[in-house]
Amino acid sequence: MMKRTTLLIVIVATLAGVASSTATTTRRATDEAAAPIFVKTIPAGYRDWKVVSVAHEAGELNDIRAVLGNDIAIKAYRDGKLPFPEGAIVGRIAWGFVASDENNKAFGRDQSFVAGSPTNFYLQFMVKDSKKYAATGGWGYSSFDKDGKPTDEAAMKSCFPCHQKVTDRDFVFTRYAP
Amino acid sequence: MMKRTTLLIVIVATLAGVASSTATTTRRATDEAAAPIFVKTIPAGYRDWKVVSVAHEAGELNDIRAVLGNDIAIKAYRDGKLPFPEGAIVGRIAWGFVASDENNKAFGRDQSFVAGSPTNFYLQFMVKDSKKYAATGGWGYSSFDKDGKPTDEAAMKSCFPCHQKVTDRDFVFTRYAP
Repeated sequence: MMKRTTLLIVIVATLAGVASSTATTTRRATDEAAAPIFVKTIPAGYRDWKVVSVAHEAGELNDIRAVLGNDIAIKAYRDGKLPFPEGAIVGRIAWGFVASDENNKAFGRDQSFVAGSPTNFYLQFMVKDSKKYAATGGWGYSSFDKDGKPTDEAAMKSCFPCHQKVTDRDFVFTRYAP
Repeated sequence: MMKRTTLLIVIVATLAGVASSTATTTRRATDEAAAPIFVKTIPAGYRDWKVVSVAHEAGELNDIRAVLGNDIAIKAYRDGKLPFPEGAIVGRIAWGFVASDENNKAFGRDQSFVAGSPTNFYLQFMVKDSKKYAATGGWGYSSFDKDGKPTDEAAMKSCFPCHQKVTDRDFVFTRYAP
């Protein structure tokens, strides 16, 4: 009888421990799903990456930008492969949109706009890690000003809701330019 | 007497040959200086090159462009080294400048322009070879339409006169974007 009771206590205690552990894991997963994780570091070597495309944002942003990809992202783009594989990073550099007096003189007419100084939203990246960034579609978002300082978290919360508009392209707006 | 005459004939003939050869070389050099040599082949792997900068040409061109450099050119740009070393190639890809309805909807306002299809002057390159392209400041110029067909030579004659406006930057307009 004593032995059986001891055994029962051990079993109950073990089950309780498992349950407790499961509860902790579940709670942690729920917390992660609720709170997006923003990336705070600039990927090494991004300025050497290959070109995905280029764009101009008029209005308040008033920038001209190059969208680049690391080798994993570029390969996926070129293969037309979706979703992007783990480790893919798509980034963009935004410079001020500046009329070039020098070019306009050379052309003999006002037509030329070039990249000026880094903007307040100079660098932005999305990093594919399906587990780590599960809360935001498998992509971790980052943004940095001209001094490399991360954009504040309140502003970062607008990344994912907007990128959700292109869920069918794995949350990536920019298409590969030929 | 016979021997001296024979020797004289040999000497005269040799000198004449040298003179003739020199004349041919000089004439060839003069022809080369007078007639620019245009490059007719697209450099291999250019789409993998690193970004120098980006630009928008409005007006008739109405394009958005990425200026790229091969490794020799990029190194010279980053080192701030002029003139560009032998083998440097600076190129640019020009796509149509297209308003993006998709992006405008996402932003909630009309502000976004992206790269469309290749233009009629899709690809242009300048290749540094001081000897071969001495007639045009040490750079050989090339231009290709969306099908990779070289631009006609009459139009190509406008490259060098325009690039001469930036002789102090070794004939290269585009500055490196940070």
